[in-house]
Amino acid sequence: MTNAAAAKTVPPETLVSALKWRYAVKKFDESGRIPAAQWAALEESLALSPSSYGLQAWKFLVVDDKALRAKLKPVSWDQSQITGADKLVVFLVKKDAGPADVQRFVDRISAVRRLPAEMLEDYKQMMLKSMSLPPEKVEAWLTRQVYIALGNFLTSAALLGVDACPMEGFDKDKYDEILGLHAKGWKSVVVATAGVRASDDAYGKNAKVRFPLSEVVEHV
Amino acid sequence: MTNAAAAKTVPPETLVSALKWRYAVKKFDESGRIPAAQWAALEESLALSPSSYGLQAWKFLVVDDKALRAKLKPVSWDQSQITGADKLVVFLVKKDAGPADVQRFVDRISAVRRLPAEMLEDYKQMMLKSMSLPPEKVEAWLTRQVYIALGNFLTSAALLGVDACPMEGFDKDKYDEILGLHAKGWKSVVVATAGVRASDDAYGKNAKVRFPLSEVVEHV
Repeated sequence: MTNAAAAKTVPPETLVSALKWRYAVKKFDESGRIPAAQWAALEESLALSPSSYGLQAWKFLVVDDKALRAKLKPVSWDQSQITGADKLVVFLVKKDAGPADVQRFVDRISAVRRLPAEMLEDYKQMMLKSMSLPPEKVEAWLTRQVYIALGNFLTSAALLGVDACPMEGFDKDKYDEILGLHAKGWKSVVVATAGVRASDDAYGKNAKVRFPLSEVVEHV
Repeated sequence: MTNAAAAKTVPPETLVSALKWRYAVKKFDESGRIPAAQWAALEESLALSPSSYGLQAWKFLVVDDKALRAKLKPVSWDQSQITGADKLVVFLVKKDAGPADVQRFVDRISAVRRLPAEMLEDYKQMMLKSMSLPPEKVEAWLTRQVYIALGNFLTSAALLGVDACPMEGFDKDKYDEILGLHAKGWKSVVVATAGVRASDDAYGKNAKVRFPLSEVVEHV
């Protein structure tokens, strides 16, 4: 399995123990801060998330402004994480994605790999075909990609020892309005808060509930 | 950030280098095998994936049968990874998910945490409310959760030094038919192959194409 250029790997038991350690934090330590190096790595991991074709029709909005976070809280079922976590990331999907987004990506490939546009024509046509589906299907497809980034973020955070909570319980229309997203071409999809779990968060003491491995992973 | 019960963490640069090392493998080394400990950890990581409410309305089908994989290849745009990778995982979502799935999960919480059903009633009602959306919305929501598991799997694999390729390019209806999924209450969502990259996979030499971090992660 060794590869000449392989990155430093992590032992299997480290991975599994990190995934067991993580849970959806309900109460953050409001004075807890994620160390700068860990947060920088998490931002980079977001940008490195895989997506279909590598299209990256997304943006990750980190809301630092306390007044904005106070405005988001009531439209997030008043959940304390919105203001109590060190970081709040709103995962966005491109609104009305289409050929221009494909072209922007093709231009980026061309620049990064120093390839002439002609060599990317077939790839571009494949992507344009996917983009020619009805708009609501395109949006659903691109939204699913955003969830890959969420999964990557949560796992990355766990491995760095950073606590997090994924959140779907918020009013997307209100988020879009408060953050002025539509005018900029974006829509909110899902939220992740991150920081340091409060030592008295009762949920941190609960046993993790998973169905037995033999039921969840099946071999044929 | 230290937590008394914290798992062993990974340095930020290890995480980032693993995510840079990974890419969507186009050609696997057909004789390459994932070590057993690494694969066991990946199966466990699938089961540990986060999902909305923790509902886990999913299953991960590992197709070991070579004849089955040969049948899947032509309905996967003939992509070589389907038969060339050491492992093939089909990510499934529960078909026609409803109150019975909520009850199954509530029963599991009750068993694992030794809690009387009454204490879980509010939580159950919340989940039932989410499940009462139109069936196509419920399925879309649960399908997005499956993508969290995909993101977790890809990141976990990268950290273990295991190569992988997420694949959406396959005929879902044919997969469902070949694997007999509908009758068992499941639908195929997305595929991940995993194994060892071929040393002559040209894609492994390509520079990774990402938009600049400053465009992808924005602060407000």
